[in-house]
Amino acid sequence: MIILGIDPGLAIVGWGVIDYTNTRFRTLAYGSIQTPAGMETPARLLAIYRELKAIIAKYKPEQMAIEELFFTKNITTGIRVAEARGIVLMAGEEAGLTMAEYTPMQVKQAVVGYGLAEKQQVIALVTRILNLPAPPKPDDTADALAIAICHAHSGCSRLAGYYNK
Amino acid sequence: MIILGIDPGLAIVGWGVIDYTNTRFRTLAYGSIQTPAGMETPARLLAIYRELKAIIAKYKPEQMAIEELFFTKNITTGIRVAEARGIVLMAGEEAGLTMAEYTPMQVKQAVVGYGLAEKQQVIALVTRILNLPAPPKPDDTADALAIAICHAHSGCSRLAGYYNK
Repeated sequence: MIILGIDPGLAIVGWGVIDYTNTRFRTLAYGSIQTPAGMETPARLLAIYRELKAIIAKYKPEQMAIEELFFTKNITTGIRVAEARGIVLMAGEEAGLTMAEYTPMQVKQAVVGYGLAEKQQVIALVTRILNLPAPPKPDDTADALAIAICHAHSGCSRLAGYYNK
Repeated sequence: MIILGIDPGLAIVGWGVIDYTNTRFRTLAYGSIQTPAGMETPARLLAIYRELKAIIAKYKPEQMAIEELFFTKNITTGIRVAEARGIVLMAGEEAGLTMAEYTPMQVKQAVVGYGLAEKQQVIALVTRILNLPAPPKPDDTADALAIAICHAHSGCSRLAGYYNK
């Protein structure tokens, strides 16, 4: 099963594509879609849409796992992340993907075994589980791979949404 | 100048297209994109995208005016509205529209002349200004027309965003 993990954002969308077959991971590709701060919001959203469509067309994932949005710090930033997240969900729908949403705590629980793990622990475990040559950069890319691993692990319970199942 | 006004939402996207030339209004079309509550979020977002694209293709607006998002009541609802709003901004960008954002207070100020006007006053004024046979339904459609009127009025100052100007 080919899984596309996504850590959504307006400035950086982390993404990672893994294959999980017979309880073995194979990493196909990972990276980040970055839009410059000087670019206007609608143009950034369109850039995210187009790059994500290209990634889906290239790696042909069957499933998408995406981080659920929580507003903890900044509401204005949160609105922009949600706008970008809408684009990601729509692109997944357009491609007919099965999509699942996970909270950060679920992802940490699935990858590290501890829901309150530190970010550096998550990155270290992602690097080890996927046998990567180096920790993925930026952190958003590591997070996206962690979300994909979370989705692959059958033990990762689903919270909010599970679409096109 | 043909203006598309949008009141964004996940369940209902109000829209209205008006022509504003030589300080005269002409109403071209108005309505709402509605997505059923039983439909999954990604499918609702895609439905909004496709219907909005069709509206833009049909009426060929040059400018889009959209309500700015404020979270007043429910954060979870706010996230869903923001996701839908991202779709609207992206569709506008894809069509090469100039886009402006207005706060609800700016819209009320422009239409009623009073930023704290009641919703029913806004609807009554929209109906009168555009010489409509009856108040537009649902309220989201009336709001969308109000936003378009706000954008047409030169006196309506711009707040947050003004894109592709």
